[in-house]
Amino acid sequence: MSERPKLMQVLASEALNPPPLWIMRQAGRYLPEYKETRKQAGSFLDLCFTPELAAEVTLQPIRRFDFDAAILFSDILVVPHVLGQKVAFEEGQGPSLDPIGDDIDRLDLAALEYQLVPIYETVRLVRTSLAPEKALIGFCGAPWTVATYMIAGRGGDDQLPARKLALKNPEKFQQLIDVLVDASASYLIGQIKAGADTVKIFDSWAGVLDEEGFQRWCIRPIKAIAERVRAALPDTPMIAFPRGAGARLKTFAAATGVDAVAIDWMTPMQIARELVPAPTVLQGNLDPLRLAAGGKALDDGVDDILAAMRGRAHIFNLGHGITPDTPIRHVEQLVARVRRGGI
Amino acid sequence: MSERPKLMQVLASEALNPPPLWIMRQAGRYLPEYKETRKQAGSFLDLCFTPELAAEVTLQPIRRFDFDAAILFSDILVVPHVLGQKVAFEEGQGPSLDPIGDDIDRLDLAALEYQLVPIYETVRLVRTSLAPEKALIGFCGAPWTVATYMIAGRGGDDQLPARKLALKNPEKFQQLIDVLVDASASYLIGQIKAGADTVKIFDSWAGVLDEEGFQRWCIRPIKAIAERVRAALPDTPMIAFPRGAGARLKTFAAATGVDAVAIDWMTPMQIARELVPAPTVLQGNLDPLRLAAGGKALDDGVDDILAAMRGRAHIFNLGHGITPDTPIRHVEQLVARVRRGGI
Repeated sequence: MSERPKLMQVLASEALNPPPLWIMRQAGRYLPEYKETRKQAGSFLDLCFTPELAAEVTLQPIRRFDFDAAILFSDILVVPHVLGQKVAFEEGQGPSLDPIGDDIDRLDLAALEYQLVPIYETVRLVRTSLAPEKALIGFCGAPWTVATYMIAGRGGDDQLPARKLALKNPEKFQQLIDVLVDASASYLIGQIKAGADTVKIFDSWAGVLDEEGFQRWCIRPIKAIAERVRAALPDTPMIAFPRGAGARLKTFAAATGVDAVAIDWMTPMQIARELVPAPTVLQGNLDPLRLAAGGKALDDGVDDILAAMRGRAHIFNLGHGITPDTPIRHVEQLVARVRRGGI
Repeated sequence: MSERPKLMQVLASEALNPPPLWIMRQAGRYLPEYKETRKQAGSFLDLCFTPELAAEVTLQPIRRFDFDAAILFSDILVVPHVLGQKVAFEEGQGPSLDPIGDDIDRLDLAALEYQLVPIYETVRLVRTSLAPEKALIGFCGAPWTVATYMIAGRGGDDQLPARKLALKNPEKFQQLIDVLVDASASYLIGQIKAGADTVKIFDSWAGVLDEEGFQRWCIRPIKAIAERVRAALPDTPMIAFPRGAGARLKTFAAATGVDAVAIDWMTPMQIARELVPAPTVLQGNLDPLRLAAGGKALDDGVDDILAAMRGRAHIFNLGHGITPDTPIRHVEQLVARVRRGGI
């Protein structure tokens, strides 16, 4: 039996039945053991930057549910943090940042790699503890999504402040995106060198952009990051998640050239399969609310996705992060149902 | 020269260059004359239910900008209001309702038509004052979108409460949708009989539904309403706006059988055109932030849409409502640019 992780087989465009499985935000508040470890850390950022604790929470869901992949426990706002922007996470609320306005010049790329050392150390620790048949996923936020938080200071309202700045002063906004492309490429390369088997780029707010914006602020920066990572480390497959891309998935997949595209719960996998041809791999896309609801809603959702993806290289996942109110037994139900495979 | 409104010509699938133009929320807070009239009314609902005032604000944007269509000034939450649910609009905030929970039985369809008389009177007044070459659009919210507000009591957070109820208790949720289908069909028929030339069904929260939910709660109820309206008044074209439908526009258009589909700003018109074949008419889809930004961002956005829609029956509009901070002169710029036509 091969020790090559199933996730990596599928990322090489092999169709497996059952498909490998992991879930977005699999380490987090729905797990009692996470809450315990969380208490030991000071702030949320302290947890991200303390390798032993971050590695522990990364591994917890693998121990409990035997998922096929671990994903580095961190946050997409680690990048603005190490670039010198003040970032805070209040318990039970979203993140808050001191909005950067148009003061892009004060961002400092010089100290980036030095400050990211603890995160690379987490990756190393996890890879050492993780069984060889499990994959380790590194990640970063896409430049557009990270920029929306840096400009607004928080999430919400369709990220209006960043959309306004991008339309009113595209040159200034391009400067910010360029800094984030540099930082993100460097960060992903660092994670891969430390032991990540694949990396995922999260563009959670891609969907609010109009046509020109989507080309310029979503596709172009992700393509630039993918090219830099591939130039440095040609054998590492990359996953991207352009949430809300809808019918634009076709252009997105073709133009960015990433190996796998993660699909949100709003685009049916059958349609995604038509929009994004093989060999590109697809990941997704159960509505997290079906997982929270459990029962028949959960089983039906899983079965529909497995049926739609039959014969295609597919990684089972949610279409968005697991919600904190999800009962553990529903996750167990999900794992059992997915592992039954498509029938 | 024909007095038949351009909008009605296009709704019969005729391509016009320049296309007819109106904008979502064209009567509203960005207009000083609206703010004046608003002061004369008591509450926002008083404004909606006072025919002389509602007719006045409906006509204001036509006088100022010579748009090709007026849209009844009202709100999608008028329906829960006349069904007996308490609805309030606070200045500068979204609407708030006493959440209905699962107490569907207390909704009362009996008094619906009686209570809607003032709104039909508004339609009559507007149609009398409006030039014959201008179209009058009636509207309602789609059952799914209206239900999300009725369940949650407000908008936001991807309408989680309604999505949860629909998954946990689909039979109960179906009851609510059935009431709203009845009420909405009756309401649209009433508006058409009073003088509306066409009607639009707004499903602003269609995009948050997963595949099964989209079929059941977005497509099926809109199809049911369209069938009832068509059975009663076969010559009135219908427009539907499934915001966030993305790649599902194809199924939506085919399955509901509406005459025109309004496109949000997140789906490029070129893609919408491929997904939704003629003779279905397309409306849309300038990003409202381009209108708020003005200048080159606005002109480029208009030109791209006109170019993408060349030769196809098209109604120019925004991809979402105009924002209250939009300067009047930007709307003037939009009108001039659209009236220049595709080149």
